[in-house]
Amino acid sequence: MSRPLLQLALDHTSLAAAQRDVARLQDHVDIVEAGTILCLAEGLNAIKALRAQCPEKILVADWKVADAGETLAQQAFNAGANWMTIICAAPLATVEKGHQVARACGGEIQMELFGNWTFDDARAWYHTGVRQAIYHRGRDAQASGQQWGDADLARMKTLSDIGLALSITGGITPADLPLFKQINVKAFIAGRALTDADRPQQVAAEFHAQIRDIWGDK
Amino acid sequence: MSRPLLQLALDHTSLAAAQRDVARLQDHVDIVEAGTILCLAEGLNAIKALRAQCPEKILVADWKVADAGETLAQQAFNAGANWMTIICAAPLATVEKGHQVARACGGEIQMELFGNWTFDDARAWYHTGVRQAIYHRGRDAQASGQQWGDADLARMKTLSDIGLALSITGGITPADLPLFKQINVKAFIAGRALTDADRPQQVAAEFHAQIRDIWGDK
Repeated sequence: MSRPLLQLALDHTSLAAAQRDVARLQDHVDIVEAGTILCLAEGLNAIKALRAQCPEKILVADWKVADAGETLAQQAFNAGANWMTIICAAPLATVEKGHQVARACGGEIQMELFGNWTFDDARAWYHTGVRQAIYHRGRDAQASGQQWGDADLARMKTLSDIGLALSITGGITPADLPLFKQINVKAFIAGRALTDADRPQQVAAEFHAQIRDIWGDK
Repeated sequence: MSRPLLQLALDHTSLAAAQRDVARLQDHVDIVEAGTILCLAEGLNAIKALRAQCPEKILVADWKVADAGETLAQQAFNAGANWMTIICAAPLATVEKGHQVARACGGEIQMELFGNWTFDDARAWYHTGVRQAIYHRGRDAQASGQQWGDADLARMKTLSDIGLALSITGGITPADLPLFKQINVKAFIAGRALTDADRPQQVAAEFHAQIRDIWGDK
């Protein structure tokens, strides 16, 4: 299990505001995510501008694709994304087509878990070649008070055992990280925990220190 | 049950190409849809430009929202959309928040049905105040050979009985329409059936003629 990465989620409604946060934080994170809100506001230009701003970072197009997997994957990867998200409710044909384009482009697909997905779905995604999923406390679920619980952790463990590395998101703070010690974590995704902090670079450093304490320094 | 409407889906990767089809077809359809592919390519500008081009049409932002229902609904309705889609996998909190903003703006939410949704979900959406859903054969499912079947029609009938008006999409042609006679159909959604036709206005006329034949002239 490799050491988890730190992902900066950009859920701004304006590209200029997102780019200001990238300028402050890109040297302190491993992955930059063009969030759904930003992508729906700014279109492909968001992906292209972030690719230009941070040419060496892993860049995620958080599009939560539900259909037209081939066309959307071509659009995302041609614009410079490394990873693209597909919503768990998508037909398996969409996952397969998205994954084929991703593989041809040297990219990866991440399955975004919301609602009524099943472990059989997860095994089917794994069999298409997909190796990543995103486990959420959604912002609305989070705002309505839903906490991380044992049921979440048990589901994450099963997903890890199926072979999917998980990125974990939803109001994550450095203090939450020990909860996920048994999970195959690809990345911790932080948005407002970083961008709304008084000292965002210090918060990023606290994430990295916790990750090293828990998962080691390799 | 009112007469079904005809919706033009714009799944272009460029706004200019979408607007050419709108210019040809807007007088022949009831609803114009800014499709997911177009919105992810062009951002909010797609919604604004289509609103400017057809100020009197119902305009749909097909965003398939999974989270951040309040922010995204504000963005969509402020840009000029009348209806916004939410993916069935979204948490109920997202549906509630999206619907609250929609109602405040005089708009409506449409639940987009993909994957493992349940009739209990449908009843929960109805109780939030949502009155529309979109029933799909996805383009990828369709390309892999999945047909409309009795199971689809039975599910649509149950959704109608729950109180949701359905928009139906996925390779629909005028010849398919009699299948849906018993369903509370809000709209038939046609994309490439119209835009790729040699004589798109004639295809639109055939849809309207079939709709009048089946549902009457009122």
